[in-house]
Amino acid sequence: MIPPSRAGSRDGRLTALDRRFLARAVELGRGGWGRVHPNPMVGAVVACGGTVLGEARHEEFGGPHAEAAALAALGERARGATLYTSLEPCLHAGKTPPCTEAIRGAGVGRVVFWAAEPGAEAGGGGEWLRGRGVRVDGPFGERGGWAAENPVFFHRASSSRPYLALKLAVSLDGRIAPAGGGRVWLSGPEARAEGHRLRAGFDGILVGTRTWKADDPMLTARGAVTPRVPPAPVLLDRRGQATAGLRALKGEGGARAIVVAGPGAAGPLKRRLAGRAEVVAAGLAPQGLDLAAALEGLGGRGVGSVLCEGGGVLGASLLAERLVDRIYLFVAPVVVGDGGVPAFPLGDPGAPGARTPAFEGWQARLDPVRFGSDTLIVLDRGG
Amino acid sequence: MIPPSRAGSRDGRLTALDRRFLARAVELGRGGWGRVHPNPMVGAVVACGGTVLGEARHEEFGGPHAEAAALAALGERARGATLYTSLEPCLHAGKTPPCTEAIRGAGVGRVVFWAAEPGAEAGGGGEWLRGRGVRVDGPFGERGGWAAENPVFFHRASSSRPYLALKLAVSLDGRIAPAGGGRVWLSGPEARAEGHRLRAGFDGILVGTRTWKADDPMLTARGAVTPRVPPAPVLLDRRGQATAGLRALKGEGGARAIVVAGPGAAGPLKRRLAGRAEVVAAGLAPQGLDLAAALEGLGGRGVGSVLCEGGGVLGASLLAERLVDRIYLFVAPVVVGDGGVPAFPLGDPGAPGARTPAFEGWQARLDPVRFGSDTLIVLDRGG
Repeated sequence: MIPPSRAGSRDGRLTALDRRFLARAVELGRGGWGRVHPNPMVGAVVACGGTVLGEARHEEFGGPHAEAAALAALGERARGATLYTSLEPCLHAGKTPPCTEAIRGAGVGRVVFWAAEPGAEAGGGGEWLRGRGVRVDGPFGERGGWAAENPVFFHRASSSRPYLALKLAVSLDGRIAPAGGGRVWLSGPEARAEGHRLRAGFDGILVGTRTWKADDPMLTARGAVTPRVPPAPVLLDRRGQATAGLRALKGEGGARAIVVAGPGAAGPLKRRLAGRAEVVAAGLAPQGLDLAAALEGLGGRGVGSVLCEGGGVLGASLLAERLVDRIYLFVAPVVVGDGGVPAFPLGDPGAPGARTPAFEGWQARLDPVRFGSDTLIVLDRGG
Repeated sequence: MIPPSRAGSRDGRLTALDRRFLARAVELGRGGWGRVHPNPMVGAVVACGGTVLGEARHEEFGGPHAEAAALAALGERARGATLYTSLEPCLHAGKTPPCTEAIRGAGVGRVVFWAAEPGAEAGGGGEWLRGRGVRVDGPFGERGGWAAENPVFFHRASSSRPYLALKLAVSLDGRIAPAGGGRVWLSGPEARAEGHRLRAGFDGILVGTRTWKADDPMLTARGAVTPRVPPAPVLLDRRGQATAGLRALKGEGGARAIVVAGPGAAGPLKRRLAGRAEVVAAGLAPQGLDLAAALEGLGGRGVGSVLCEGGGVLGASLLAERLVDRIYLFVAPVVVGDGGVPAFPLGDPGAPGARTPAFEGWQARLDPVRFGSDTLIVLDRGG
């Protein structure tokens, strides 16, 4: 989705072929969605001239990295070839040996990488290789683009808060439900299937009180990707009203479940849900639960990324408090009408010509995708 | 944008290679935007096995068709090859000899085409070739998909009314302007450039009275495509208030200009604008000018396609009267707020769960495209 051609100053070094193979590496990497996190999604292409010798991706957390996998399959044939990878080769011996060693050992003549490794521990692979006589070109582009491809991974490098994405299905007039707020599918089946695929890439799936009370959702990832670790349903429950009979607390697929309760409610709830859900206590804010504190509590439980699926009040609160890092916006070709529930009830900017201040700084960095008659627009916050 | 793989029942005959070359033919054809209409945009690929021997598109109205151009460049090398084309080869001797003759003469072994030629006069090329021993595969897919690629061309085959597209730039909350309705660029420069490119493919660019009074727009196509025939600015002017000093009436690039006036206003206006604009008279409807009649009047003047660029009241009226065939919706990643001017002020559907009846039947058939941080969603009406 991100053409490496958008890149920054060093971009001129890249030929059209280089760009094509880098884009292919990025595309390959995406196939790791739901299987590699908290590692980044990475793809690698080994080519000689215009001919692709081999390709690989990081398939599974704990398994071989993309670069090492692509080179291992080629053996001696990789000697003198060019390795294209979507992320700077790691210099870090973690669950697998560092990719830099594999690259040097394979006798690769040139390495072209797109994104800079953000972690201090694993970073520096490019320089390390340069210091050993390998021609290395990269990084290209800028952090915003890299982060759009591996949002949770880059977020974690600079924030202790869980990464939060908000999924919204809206009409052309920006409504999430008709007047009265009844449950209605604005999106078609293809878009809903993509919603399930997206779930697989998150640690937790968050819904507000009204949503779990009204819909009793399962919050499982029943899509094209089976998540390596099933995401945890996360229910907000200020007053401690959740019961063990809720579908989200059934532990489908071995998933943990988490309930965030308000002051005074956490204790009784913990006893009532014993064995069915972890209970996180959060304080109160003027509008209800303190959402920032709730997120911190989730982070403390090892939930590094959260997909919020509603309802409307929760989504709007998260947006207003600027706690949302990404919006997955499925736009359906329908009009709900003036009485419908707005997705972005952020009030009037006041002065004509002004934009709503709470909604500054959003950008579309990934290309939109059509699912049936719906369009997925991915918006990322900040630069 | 339309993968031929979406197609209908005959689709099984196509190999992955066939699909790739057909998709390439469609993609090539798109390059004729603004230069070939009222002809269709058509691309052709000549291949032998997996190797492309030649490619061509219909470049210019009156010039060679894509199939003939691709074959002519190859001469004897086309013998026994496969010709892929986005539209059924024409059987019609018009400005150029029929493509069927060129195909037969070139000794092509197989023809694969995507869309069926809708015109009775030019149609039947596939059958004609089959009758002469050429293996012909096509059409594939269905009319809705073909029409999405060549909307004006297919529209004309079944309607006498001009094809009408509505361009809207909206915020995420479906607003076209902030409270008070002042002029503001919701879209970024890339989206605005695409708006200029789109203009090049239409016979007329339509705006309502408030828009030309407030903005005095030029309505010229100042984009990446120089239109073969510059589109005519079309101003609605119920009361006959247009003056010769308006920028849209300057005849930039040799463009004609048209003013649609209400009863009683047309005569004086014709005299006042003599030589600067054609004046079309239209009757009145409860809300203002009779828009259906205005469109008929434009059709009678040879305006086969119209791009309406606003304002909001005109766009909403055209939508409500179901006169819009396509919506080019540029979605900007901003929120205007509740006081903003809605793009789709179609009222409340009444019953919860209902969708606005005036807005039924829209579909996204083309893939969305990102322009900077804006997303272009193309919606087509009907099946």
